[in-house]
Amino acid sequence: MILPEAIAELVMANRIVAHLKVVDFFGHVTMRHPQNPERYLMSRSRAPGSVSAGDILEFHLDSTPVDSRGMSMYLERPIHGNIYQARPDVMAVCHNHAQGLLPFAVTKTAMRPAIHAAAVIGAEVPVWDIRDEFGETSLLVVNNDMGRSLARCLGQGRAALMRGHGSIVTGKSLKDVVFTAHYLQVNAEVVLRGRILGTVQSLSPEEVKLGAAVHDNPSLLGRAWEQWVVEAGLTGVV
Amino acid sequence: MILPEAIAELVMANRIVAHLKVVDFFGHVTMRHPQNPERYLMSRSRAPGSVSAGDILEFHLDSTPVDSRGMSMYLERPIHGNIYQARPDVMAVCHNHAQGLLPFAVTKTAMRPAIHAAAVIGAEVPVWDIRDEFGETSLLVVNNDMGRSLARCLGQGRAALMRGHGSIVTGKSLKDVVFTAHYLQVNAEVVLRGRILGTVQSLSPEEVKLGAAVHDNPSLLGRAWEQWVVEAGLTGVV
Amino acid sequence: MILPEAIAELVMANRIVAHLKVVDFFGHVTMRHPQNPERYLMSRSRAPGSVSAGDILEFHLDSTPVDSRGMSMYLERPIHGNIYQARPDVMAVCHNHAQGLLPFAVTKTAMRPAIHAAAVIGAEVPVWDIRDEFGETSLLVVNNDMGRSLARCLGQGRAALMRGHGSIVTGKSLKDVVFTAHYLQVNAEVVLRGRILGTVQSLSPEEVKLGAAVHDNPSLLGRAWEQWVVEAGLTGVV
Amino acid sequence: MILPEAIAELVMANRIVAHLKVVDFFGHVTMRHPQNPERYLMSRSRAPGSVSAGDILEFHLDSTPVDSRGMSMYLERPIHGNIYQARPDVMAVCHNHAQGLLPFAVTKTAMRPAIHAAAVIGAEVPVWDIRDEFGETSLLVVNNDMGRSLARCLGQGRAALMRGHGSIVTGKSLKDVVFTAHYLQVNAEVVLRGRILGTVQSLSPEEVKLGAAVHDNPSLLGRAWEQWVVEAGLTGVV
Repeated sequence: MILPEAIAELVMANRIVAHLKVVDFFGHVTMRHPQNPERYLMSRSRAPGSVSAGDILEFHLDSTPVDSRGMSMYLERPIHGNIYQARPDVMAVCHNHAQGLLPFAVTKTAMRPAIHAAAVIGAEVPVWDIRDEFGETSLLVVNNDMGRSLARCLGQGRAALMRGHGSIVTGKSLKDVVFTAHYLQVNAEVVLRGRILGTVQSLSPEEVKLGAAVHDNPSLLGRAWEQWVVEAGLTGVV
Repeated sequence: MILPEAIAELVMANRIVAHLKVVDFFGHVTMRHPQNPERYLMSRSRAPGSVSAGDILEFHLDSTPVDSRGMSMYLERPIHGNIYQARPDVMAVCHNHAQGLLPFAVTKTAMRPAIHAAAVIGAEVPVWDIRDEFGETSLLVVNNDMGRSLARCLGQGRAALMRGHGSIVTGKSLKDVVFTAHYLQVNAEVVLRGRILGTVQSLSPEEVKLGAAVHDNPSLLGRAWEQWVVEAGLTGVV
Repeated sequence: MILPEAIAELVMANRIVAHLKVVDFFGHVTMRHPQNPERYLMSRSRAPGSVSAGDILEFHLDSTPVDSRGMSMYLERPIHGNIYQARPDVMAVCHNHAQGLLPFAVTKTAMRPAIHAAAVIGAEVPVWDIRDEFGETSLLVVNNDMGRSLARCLGQGRAALMRGHGSIVTGKSLKDVVFTAHYLQVNAEVVLRGRILGTVQSLSPEEVKLGAAVHDNPSLLGRAWEQWVVEAGLTGVV
Repeated sequence: MILPEAIAELVMANRIVAHLKVVDFFGHVTMRHPQNPERYLMSRSRAPGSVSAGDILEFHLDSTPVDSRGMSMYLERPIHGNIYQARPDVMAVCHNHAQGLLPFAVTKTAMRPAIHAAAVIGAEVPVWDIRDEFGETSLLVVNNDMGRSLARCLGQGRAALMRGHGSIVTGKSLKDVVFTAHYLQVNAEVVLRGRILGTVQSLSPEEVKLGAAVHDNPSLLGRAWEQWVVEAGLTGVV
């Protein structure tokens, strides 16, 4: 994948996560640079639903910009840089405050997948509480110490919740991370409503493994992505 | 009904279930071939909201394609083929993961109709758990053994839930199956919210019978269908 | 108000209750004939969101058509005719299955207004159960005996719920009945969600009286109506 | 800021709170006059989603109009006038009945921020009950005695709930008040749903302070505002 194609796909990913209400005017989706694994690509500071190719900047993994071109940047870049550093297998990251998952983040309830498509979120999604290591803060992840702590909580997983704040989601590609971020929210809503009815049956660890393998499939991910492009009126946008 | 008309109606059914959020990019609606009861019609693998006449393929009841024309196919065809085999009265099938009904599927709560229009779902909707017969799986119904097992759980009913996955809905026509799939979800949402208030009164078995008979009416089904075509902006699409 | 104006307003009321999701393809809104109190105006059988002036028919209060012009008619006309008979003060009626209020109808929970704009629904909304007088039925109100029974349950009130079915709402004008039907649903949603938090404080009987008087105001009702016309894209439709 | 610019921004604020469903046809957003702190600007009585520059009127802080130009005025002007009198630091006020926060208003549940962006609502949002001082009323704030009582309950805070009615929100600017009114509703929805899962963790008092400081930032508020303008199709409207 060469850079202009990568940027076009990153713009589309920004627009799609906005369409899916995974992000609103806050939240970001990024990708590792396709030719240089020591860099990542991220929009300048603006609402993801309005991001265009000209907004995409390159960052070193310490989250300093290669060239900011005088643009304002997201404060929480260290979330992304530290995950790319800690996890060479991760090619894309989404940080979001999707409203559907926040009830889990404010109650520190461990989230487990209960529907097969949500197997992609992993067997359990841990909750990171910034207060444990950093005491009283604004809850924002604004330096590399905080970013490293969050990446440690993520470990080898696919996603983590952040107490009082939101979530991080990782993927092997942009399509993968968008799909996973979407199902993190869908699973949260289904499990929460299931709690009204009774005890929720999570997938077994083996079902998580087998279910994730099925959805780790470019054709399935592509079917979702293409439909989102249509629904969001993004055909031909980038 | 001749084939081109049948295909046009199947395309419309795909678009309507997408509009109703009965399906998203997953899920499928199919019909028995209007001239050959040993075949059924189903889209190639794509999001139902984007299906067009050129996407419709014919399948034998063992779910092998008559001619796949080189197109990729849905993995879960055995759901459909085995229901058409087991139930000569069924003319249309919808498999879906409608979000509103998933809380019942993840808690294995038996669903009963509580509102009169939902009488069409039958007196009780059983929950099929793939684990009971097939152990650890991805939860997908990918072979005829699984499809037969699911069809046995359905029995002579109108619908069944699938644990951790979704539902199957059957009908005497496409209009019937779309109507029933819609009310399966509406009933789920009403019953779940009713549980917050107190004990939900289900319809009596006789009310289910009488209510279903009223809604087994081409003029009522047509009133719903026509409105969906308008709402979804599908006038003149097919 | 002369007849063409009345019909134009009735068409608009049909479109607005569809826009507000008070009705979908089922449900109806009617008005007493502006020149003959022994008749009422109602659409032929079609989804309210698609009703046009040519669909409006006149009915006697026994719900026989003055001239059906060969059109199919709603089955549940007796709901309307019997309310107009029993309540000379009622000028408009809406029968609906609004999803937000159904949890109350399936649990037979008495609904009371808890927000000031819902004072228009009256101090308490009774629940009518067709089974009490008519035993096992399809739950539809298909004859004048049933219609009279429902009207008795309504009494001098503004609205009543129907077990397993929906609601009836009355008003002094179309604008009034649409406003009240909307707030019946809004109040249901607020009270249900309030139950998750704790004990819901209903308005006092005196607050209901004073709140209803404030909202019995053509200028307030007009502010709502005009905004709905804009939102629903109905400017210049009729 | 000169007057025409202020009016243009106030019109946009009206349209945005309508887009965000903070208000429907009821509710209002106002600003202190940019050149005369003894006056405030408010639309004539109409749905905020339809407000244009020609609708904006000037009021004295006792809520009498400077010149009503024969237009009808909102009844609840005393809410605004009395807050501007009591709180010289307040530059904008929003009174709304946002449906998401009403469950707290009808149960008199104290609301606390649980997500970092909601730190702007302050550490605790008090509930004002008009009945405490004024007995049986329509719940509307229709005179300056009532307005003063409500302003006392607000104290030095950012927002207050009104039992059975809605809320008031204050800000240092229109962008600030719109952002805060939005997050008052988002926080209400997240906390309510969190209650279904278990005990909700509120932000600590220090986290509220630090979180509010982060969001008291023209660039963050601007990112939200610009996205709302785009989403609501308001580019170039004013």
